[in-house]
Amino acid sequence: MVNVGIIGYGTVGSGVFEVINTNRQSIAIKAGEEIKVKRICDLRDMPGDPAEKLITHDFNDILNDDEISVVVETMGGTKPAYDFVKLAIEAGKSVCTSNKELVAKYGAGLIKLAKEKNVNFLFEASVGGGIPVIRPLNYSLTAEEIIEIQGILNGTTNYILTKMDKEGLDYDTVLKEAQAMGYAERNPSADVDGYDSGRKIAILTSLAYGKQVDFEDIPVEGISRITKEDMEYAKSLDATIKLIGESKKDGGVVYARVAPVMLSRNQPLHSVEDVFNAVLIKGNMVDDVMFYGRGAGKLPTASAVVADVVEAVRNKDRHLDINWDEEKLTLGDIRQYKQKFFVRVPESEKEAAKQKISGIEEVKSDKVVGEFAFITSPLTEAEFEELTGDLSVKNKIIINF
Amino acid sequence: MVNVGIIGYGTVGSGVFEVINTNRQSIAIKAGEEIKVKRICDLRDMPGDPAEKLITHDFNDILNDDEISVVVETMGGTKPAYDFVKLAIEAGKSVCTSNKELVAKYGAGLIKLAKEKNVNFLFEASVGGGIPVIRPLNYSLTAEEIIEIQGILNGTTNYILTKMDKEGLDYDTVLKEAQAMGYAERNPSADVDGYDSGRKIAILTSLAYGKQVDFEDIPVEGISRITKEDMEYAKSLDATIKLIGESKKDGGVVYARVAPVMLSRNQPLHSVEDVFNAVLIKGNMVDDVMFYGRGAGKLPTASAVVADVVEAVRNKDRHLDINWDEEKLTLGDIRQYKQKFFVRVPESEKEAAKQKISGIEEVKSDKVVGEFAFITSPLTEAEFEELTGDLSVKNKIIINF
Repeated sequence: MVNVGIIGYGTVGSGVFEVINTNRQSIAIKAGEEIKVKRICDLRDMPGDPAEKLITHDFNDILNDDEISVVVETMGGTKPAYDFVKLAIEAGKSVCTSNKELVAKYGAGLIKLAKEKNVNFLFEASVGGGIPVIRPLNYSLTAEEIIEIQGILNGTTNYILTKMDKEGLDYDTVLKEAQAMGYAERNPSADVDGYDSGRKIAILTSLAYGKQVDFEDIPVEGISRITKEDMEYAKSLDATIKLIGESKKDGGVVYARVAPVMLSRNQPLHSVEDVFNAVLIKGNMVDDVMFYGRGAGKLPTASAVVADVVEAVRNKDRHLDINWDEEKLTLGDIRQYKQKFFVRVPESEKEAAKQKISGIEEVKSDKVVGEFAFITSPLTEAEFEELTGDLSVKNKIIINF
Repeated sequence: MVNVGIIGYGTVGSGVFEVINTNRQSIAIKAGEEIKVKRICDLRDMPGDPAEKLITHDFNDILNDDEISVVVETMGGTKPAYDFVKLAIEAGKSVCTSNKELVAKYGAGLIKLAKEKNVNFLFEASVGGGIPVIRPLNYSLTAEEIIEIQGILNGTTNYILTKMDKEGLDYDTVLKEAQAMGYAERNPSADVDGYDSGRKIAILTSLAYGKQVDFEDIPVEGISRITKEDMEYAKSLDATIKLIGESKKDGGVVYARVAPVMLSRNQPLHSVEDVFNAVLIKGNMVDDVMFYGRGAGKLPTASAVVADVVEAVRNKDRHLDINWDEEKLTLGDIRQYKQKFFVRVPESEKEAAKQKISGIEEVKSDKVVGEFAFITSPLTEAEFEELTGDLSVKNKIIINF
């Protein structure tokens, strides 16, 4: 029998309690022994909740309980989560977390500490919710040199963009609807401005290259400037627009960013819709592999946390190596990377655009008038800005086909 | 330094040699030490091949070499592969294989033997080629009760069906083209008749439920009766036809089969095209997760074998438990399962069909004349046969939407 303590009884924390109880028997078979939640730390009392009797307001009740060997951290944020996790590992407990902020910022250090204490620090749920992607990246794609990672890493933005695509609605309308349905937060910035995706691609890139990629170094752009007109043009190209967190290694340099990208129908990420997430990884031997599923939600995310608990139980007194050092990986300047852009200017600037930018390809849509839209040949951001400086660019979107 | 012996220097075996040599440095980081191919057993001499000097015709040169701690089996078939693998495990060596026939038939017994000898028997490459799916099923989806598995498990048939869909060609024409391009064997039966998919779904189902699912117990049907007319009707339903290996647990009973199935555009497997494979797993907590990639091919398959070698090296003197007992799992009768069918009869039987089968929904296609096509309400195979006994059914295909 292994006793688990949970810190943070919100959506994911209560999901962990539910998953462990619902699948108790099959989890015991996989783990080799029964897993039980013994204590839950939360500031609230949770009257009437099935876990009510397990609640404590004092983290020390978990930290100092020698019967608790695995701690689940589902508080979110870094304060006080980081201190609690550090104390738990120092006390010789394994920690399983869904907290991407914690992992992106302190992952390398906590892995090192867990190694010193011969316990495990596991974080499958921090990227892609219920989708197994961290463990496959660490333990399955070990024969690969990773060339590129592209992910739809945020369900809220994917829901909004899918709805804009399918129903021809504009961003503000869909955002309000998503907020009303609980798919978007009242303050949606972390999702729609790309920060959530940015932390997740920072974690994946750190694991792919074994060094610390700081979230703050990744250029991040959200979806709020995507209009229904952009989506109409995308459709006329048999494409759509997705918020993509990506990194790639080229000439020994690693580049990363989060930005809206136009994808054509024949790309695997194109068909990832609504709140689903997917991570596409390109290796130098295996080519493309993709992991798809529910990137958020109570039970899917909790399922990934509990899988980590099972892994911790299967590996008592044995630290599972994770290749992520504290040494910082300096990213290349993505602005120096050549790529094609989709661009919209007023119709009056059609001739000027054609003269200034060679090799452009016009894009037409029945649904938009008074504009001239086109695709450029591959350009760096700097080249693009120089060429279009005199034009009234309405929007530009990276093209990935 | 870990020394590896390879038995079978065909497509996959030579790929393993290439992957280990190409990614030597990054593999050493992941494995914790360098991995080297020391000996290769093949009946041929391989003059001029980079591995020429490593070739032996005598398996004993690998078996009796105490410096070789990991054996890669890439011969295919069960004779003599089974004997060689058994001898290697008995000699205290870990074995990594891509051989689905071996794994489907002897997997449970070889896992048991590996446990007794405290070594590992690993077989990631036996299903889905380069796609990580065995390890995620064993070690990531451990908090789940698996409800259903559906896979596009064979690249040859998926290539043929994709080509029929996109180009409106008939089965024989595309098969010949696939044979000319090397995507299909001269004797294509193992692929097109569904046996390859059958062995793979047998392996996945055994792992999902922890007991032996015999390949011979799974009803298997191939794609040779799928016509371009069927594909036209599918298109008119915004659907396509895929060869699906699937199993599901319902009321405590596990059902499995391989058959052509019509899938609609909004299903994740719909967009898996050409030689790509994918496995969709539904758990009771995580809902749908999908693993996608190259299900065959030299380097992708070899990459999965080498990932197993890395796992074996990381787990020296430690058997990794795999939940697959020799106890046989008796499958339910899939013919008792109710499902919708797409059916085509001559136009002259339109009224008869409508009278006999209640609740049918007509399907029209501009491209097919002289027929009446329809979708039934959910029926068992027996009910279907009773209702359509007097009709001249041209084809029927399972509908999964």
